[in-house]
Amino acid sequence: MDWMDSRIMNAEDLARQVGEAMYPRDRAAQSLGITLEDIRPGYARMRMTVRPDMLNGHALCHGGFLFTLCDTAFAYACNSHNHNTVAAGCSIEYLAPAFEGDVLTAEAREHVLHGRTGIYDVDVTDQHGKRIVAFRGKSHRIKGAVTDPPPDLRKTDQEKP
Amino acid sequence: MDWMDSRIMNAEDLARQVGEAMYPRDRAAQSLGITLEDIRPGYARMRMTVRPDMLNGHALCHGGFLFTLCDTAFAYACNSHNHNTVAAGCSIEYLAPAFEGDVLTAEAREHVLHGRTGIYDVDVTDQHGKRIVAFRGKSHRIKGAVTDPPPDLRKTDQEKP
Amino acid sequence: MDWMDSRIMNAEDLARQVGEAMYPRDRAAQSLGITLEDIRPGYARMRMTVRPDMLNGHALCHGGFLFTLCDTAFAYACNSHNHNTVAAGCSIEYLAPAFEGDVLTAEAREHVLHGRTGIYDVDVTDQHGKRIVAFRGKSHRIKGAVTDPPPDLRKTDQEKP
Amino acid sequence: MDWMDSRIMNAEDLARQVGEAMYPRDRAAQSLGITLEDIRPGYARMRMTVRPDMLNGHALCHGGFLFTLCDTAFAYACNSHNHNTVAAGCSIEYLAPAFEGDVLTAEAREHVLHGRTGIYDVDVTDQHGKRIVAFRGKSHRIKGAVTDPPPDLRKTDQEKP
Repeated sequence: MDWMDSRIMNAEDLARQVGEAMYPRDRAAQSLGITLEDIRPGYARMRMTVRPDMLNGHALCHGGFLFTLCDTAFAYACNSHNHNTVAAGCSIEYLAPAFEGDVLTAEAREHVLHGRTGIYDVDVTDQHGKRIVAFRGKSHRIKGAVTDPPPDLRKTDQEKP
Repeated sequence: MDWMDSRIMNAEDLARQVGEAMYPRDRAAQSLGITLEDIRPGYARMRMTVRPDMLNGHALCHGGFLFTLCDTAFAYACNSHNHNTVAAGCSIEYLAPAFEGDVLTAEAREHVLHGRTGIYDVDVTDQHGKRIVAFRGKSHRIKGAVTDPPPDLRKTDQEKP
Repeated sequence: MDWMDSRIMNAEDLARQVGEAMYPRDRAAQSLGITLEDIRPGYARMRMTVRPDMLNGHALCHGGFLFTLCDTAFAYACNSHNHNTVAAGCSIEYLAPAFEGDVLTAEAREHVLHGRTGIYDVDVTDQHGKRIVAFRGKSHRIKGAVTDPPPDLRKTDQEKP
Repeated sequence: MDWMDSRIMNAEDLARQVGEAMYPRDRAAQSLGITLEDIRPGYARMRMTVRPDMLNGHALCHGGFLFTLCDTAFAYACNSHNHNTVAAGCSIEYLAPAFEGDVLTAEAREHVLHGRTGIYDVDVTDQHGKRIVAFRGKSHRIKGAVTDPPPDLRKTDQEKP
C-alpha cells in the first residue's frame, strides 16, 4: 500500500509542479489576468475577471476571451500528467452572457484519456454560479515532458512494481 | 433592372456601414490590434499580427487569440446584413502553429443562412498563405438592427417591388 | 418531506413513462436493434449489437451507426423530463473502432440544462469497457409534452408547494 | 503540358476507381439505399431516399440517418485521392427536418487538406433544394491505398517530372 500512496501523492505533486512550470511562461494567461487556482491530475481550475477591454460592441464579454479562459484551463488539465500535450480542436457553446466585473471560474476535467488522445470538458460559471459556456477540447500528446520531475519523485516512480 | 442594381449596391453599402458602426465599439478587437480589411454581405476579412503577449509557453500564438480573431471575423460577417446576430456556438480545428510577428488574415464566409440561423466558415492563413486554423460558427439572429441605415438607403429599400 | 419524496419518485416515474411512450414509435431504434436499458431524469442507457450490415468497407462498424446509437440515447435523455426536445447539433469523436458482434452500451448524461437549451454527453463503450466514441449533443426544447402524465402524477405535481 | 493533362485525367480516373472499389464493400451504404452519384478528387455526391424505417417518433428522418448519409459522402470524398483515410471526428448542425419519401442529396467538398489532416464540408439538400443539415468532418490519413491503380495509370504517374 505504501508505494500506492506515494504514487498517488506523486501524481498530485507532479501536476502542481507542471502548473508551476507552465504559468510563468504563459504570457497570454498573465496578460488577461487569468490565475491558476488549482491543478491536479486531469484537472485544472482557473479564474478571470471580465475587464473593460474584454467587452464587445454589446458591452458583453467577447466570446474570444471566454474561449481563451477555457482553452487555458484545458491546456493545464491536459498537460497535468507532465506529457507535452497540444490542442487538436475545440468547440464552445454559449449559454449566458458575462458582463464587466464578473469573476469567471473555469473548471477543466478529463473526460477521456485514450492513448495519445484526450477529451476535456471545461465549464465556466460566474460568481453567482450561473453557467456561462460549455467547452470541449480534444488533445494530442506529443514528445517530451513539460517539466523535469525532481530526483525523489523520479526515484519513487522507478521503484513502483 | 434599376431597382435591382440599387438594391445590390445597398446591401454592399449597408454591410460597410455595419462595419463602421461595429468597429469603434469593439474594444476587444482594438486591444488585440485586429483590423477590419473588408466587409460585404455575409463576408468579412480581418487581420491580426501575433504579438509577444499572445504567445503561450511554447512560444506559439495561444489558441485563444487565434479563436478570437476567427470569432471577430465571424461576428462582422454574420451582422453584415444589419440584423443583430449573436454566436450560439463555434468549433475550431488547429492546422498549423503561428509564431510571433506572423500576420494572420481571417476570412469569414456565410455557408448557410436559414431563417434566423446561420453557419459561417472562417479560415485563417499566415503571410505565406499557410492555413493556420479552420473555424465554423453558428449564429442566431436576435431583435434589432446594428445600425440605422441613412434615409436614402431606407427610401430605396421601401421602393423596391 | 412527503411531497419531496413523491416529487422525486414522480420525476423518475415520468422519465420511465417517457421512455415507454417514445420507444414503440421509434422505428429507427427498432430497425437497428437498439434497446432502452435504463431511463431516468436527464439520463438514458441504450444498447446495440454491431450487425454485419452495419460494417463499412474496412469491416468496422460504420461511424453513422455509432452516431445513431449516441443520437438515440441523447434523444431519450433530453426528452426524459417530458418536454418535447429536439437536437440542434451534435459532435462526435472517434476513439477506437467497433467490430461485428460487439455489444455497445451508450450512456447519455445531462451536462447542462439552461432554460430551453441543454447539453448532453454520450459515451459509448464495448463489452470490454473500451471507449469507442465520445459524443456531445445540444438540445432545444420546443412546445408540447412527450406523453400525458397519468392523473395521479399530475395531481401531485399541482399540489407541490 | 501533356503529362499535366494526363495527370489531371488520372486524378479524376483514380477517384472514380476508388469509388468503384469502395462501394461494393460498403454494406452500410447499400443497406440504407445510399447511392454514389459522382466522385472526383476531394469531392463526392451521394443520394438517399428517406424510408419509413428511417423515421423517429415524430415521423421525421432520424438524425442518425442524416448523419450516416453525410458521413458516407465524407468517406468517399476524403478517400478519393486513393490514400486510406479515416474520420477523426465530425459535427452536424440540423437546419430543417426531412420527411418520408424525401430524396436527399449530400455533397462533400474538401475544405482543407494539410499533410495527413483534412477537413470536409458536407451539405444535404432535399429534392426542393432546401438545406437539411450542414456537416463538417475531420479526416486522418493512415497507411495504405484504397485500390491498386491499373498499370497504365501507375506508369504515367511514374513518368511525371
